[in-house]
Parts: sequence; structure tokens; C-alpha cells
Amino acid sequence: MSELTIWTYDWVPEGPRGFVRDLRLRWACEEAGLPYAVQTVPFDGRETNHLSSQPFGQVPFLSDGELQMFESGACLLHLAWKSDTLMPCDEAGQAHTLQWAIAALNSIEMVSVPWWFLTISGNADNDLAGWMGKRLYQLEDVLGERDWLAAGRFTVADLLMADVLRVPKVRTFGNRPASEAYVARLTDRPAFRKAYADQMAHFEQADETRA
Amino acid sequence: MSELTIWTYDWVPEGPRGFVRDLRLRWACEEAGLPYAVQTVPFDGRETNHLSSQPFGQVPFLSDGELQMFESGACLLHLAWKSDTLMPCDEAGQAHTLQWAIAALNSIEMVSVPWWFLTISGNADNDLAGWMGKRLYQLEDVLGERDWLAAGRFTVADLLMADVLRVPKVRTFGNRPASEAYVARLTDRPAFRKAYADQMAHFEQADETRA
Repeated sequence: MSELTIWTYDWVPEGPRGFVRDLRLRWACEEAGLPYAVQTVPFDGRETNHLSSQPFGQVPFLSDGELQMFESGACLLHLAWKSDTLMPCDEAGQAHTLQWAIAALNSIEMVSVPWWFLTISGNADNDLAGWMGKRLYQLEDVLGERDWLAAGRFTVADLLMADVLRVPKVRTFGNRPASEAYVARLTDRPAFRKAYADQMAHFEQADETRA
Repeated sequence: MSELTIWTYDWVPEGPRGFVRDLRLRWACEEAGLPYAVQTVPFDGRETNHLSSQPFGQVPFLSDGELQMFESGACLLHLAWKSDTLMPCDEAGQAHTLQWAIAALNSIEMVSVPWWFLTISGNADNDLAGWMGKRLYQLEDVLGERDWLAAGRFTVADLLMADVLRVPKVRTFGNRPASEAYVARLTDRPAFRKAYADQMAHFEQADETRA
């Protein structure tokens, strides 16, 4: 039995399929060749049924032997330190990978997720749009200059940033050819395609059980 | 000369004083007893004048000898690994410290900063208020059960979460006595008080030069 277990919902509606964040952890394990199992908590009652494992009622969380942890960003970094495919071995490479992983979570997603939330709530021209554009075009300038965010090679920072940027409304925000090429390149990696197909199959299978 | 240099603005208006994020790094260095210097980039022209050091035009960034990095959360983790005052030595303690540091950045601040932004833009009853309340009360439940977020002791996760929660409009959101006690306890630490006083003095001194 695998030491690593990724916990996700037993089922979700069609909308979020392919975007539930267990995909980040599946993708990381696939890149690194780390064996893992997938287990589930019920989607119904999700706001309160697993608060002891995830105090915000979300998924994913991760078991690593006796250790259990939540926050996809933290789980990704925990997995990354197991594999130099995800995390360089030198100090500067590690610092810059960490820096860009946190940038994905706290400089981009801190704007893009609330912007997306307001947008799907029917307020497309919301007050976060200006900030959103500024950040995404600043990142576009960075991605116009290089293929990878850190250490001149693929790292967990690219995995995380690409997952943040591939959300459809974010991906199609403005005209950002370097960002689009980056997302297309990252999501064409075999490890992403396997993780994505596995998540889609997981929820499709759940439809049958639920039907 | 110190190996560690925290970079901040040469001056800011009164509003953000005491909240510019160099304070997070000053606080961490004070807790850990790490010697550091402070250097500045101009506030005027900040959106474009230091993009080579911080691609989003923000502060702080950190120099550690030859290494330079940005994102306050990443810099904090980089500093934390230098000191068991900030980061426990055991694997579970490290994983849970990392988890709660990322929770501060990506579960709380991802809601609180955009909510704050909309609020100060004149929209106090904005569409993020429900999400904000949910997250803050989920965290209140956690802080009602224990004094520290991770490892049963002060860690860099508490430093970061307290800094996120002490923003006045966030601190006074709803009635959350455990969170208030937590913020009061954390900001009463000598290392916080020194970092805060030093940042205030830094900007006050700049007023004289600027006048």
C-alpha cells in the first residue's frame, strides 16, 4: 500500500471537474514518479463533515504515512522536497522555486480567484478587474522572457502557476501570448494529462455509483 | 556587514505605515536573532523602478549574500529554515508549520486582502463579505481550541497569520474573541514590537529627508 494518499471529494458537479485541486497533487506525484493512492470524503456535507482534516471544509488534503496535512500549496511543497524533478537541489534554485510557488498563491491567485468569484457571480466588470489585469500583464512580461519561472527548468512553481493560470476565465483574460504558450506547454506534459484524465475518470465513475 | 538585507520603500504615506510587509521579515529576524540590514528602493516610481528585483513592483524583497528573492511568504520560509525558533526540526512540525503559513496566504489572505481592497474602495458590503465571514469564523473555531497553529508552539505560521489578521478592518470583522486574543498575544511579543517601532521610525526619518 502506498504511503501517500491524496484525499478528494467522492463526487463533484460537472463544473469544477478537471479543476478540483487534488489535481495539483496528482500532477506532482506523476511528475516525480511518487506512488500514491486516492481516497475520498463525501461532497454532500462537505462544509462540516471533514473539518478535523481540513478546517475550511475543502479538499485536497494529503496523508504521508502517519502525517496528514492540508493546503494544496503546502502539500505540493512537501511533495516537492521528495524529488529533484519538482525542486532543485541548490539553495538558489530552491529559494526561487519557493518564491514563484508563493507568487502563484499570493500574488496571482489572491487576485484571480476573488476576481473569478465576482465574475461568475454575475459581475464581470467588477472592481478587481484593474488589479487583475495589472498582475497578469506583469507576469506576461516575465513569461515573455523565459520558459520556466525558476532555476531555468521545470519546477513545482511552474506546476502551480500553470494550474492557477489555466482556469478558463483567467486563461482568456486579455491578450497574453507568452502566458498562453506557457499554459499550453505545461498542460501538454504527460504527467498533467494523466492527472487530468484520472480526475475526470474518478468523478465520472462516481456518477454511476450516485445514479 | 550583515548577510541579510531586507529591502523596503524609502518612504510611504502615513496610511500603510506599520503594515508594509518588510515588517514580516524584520519580525522574523528579531524572533530568530538573525542580524540584518535594511535598504530601500524609491517609493516614487515604484510600479516600474525595481521590476528586476520584484516583478510586481512591490516590497519587500530579501538579499541573503548573493541570493535575492521576493514574496514575503517565501522570504519568511527561507528565514524560518535558518532557525528552530521559527520552524520546528521534526518532519510533522515542519509540515504543519508550512501548512498554516500557506493557509494564512492562500485561505485567509486570498479573501481578506481583496475584501479589504473593495471595502476601502467604498464598497463595505461587497460580494466577498460572506466568504470572508465564513473563513474567519472557521479560523476562529481553530484558534478557540489552541494557542498556536502548528506544533504546539510559536512558529513562523503564527507570525504570518497574526500579520494577516491584525489589519484593522480584518481584526474588527465580526465578534471573534479567540482570534482577537491571538492577535493581541502575538503583537505583544518583543520581537513584533521592535519590528513595528523600527518600521515606524524608518518612515518618520524619511519624512525629514523628504520635507
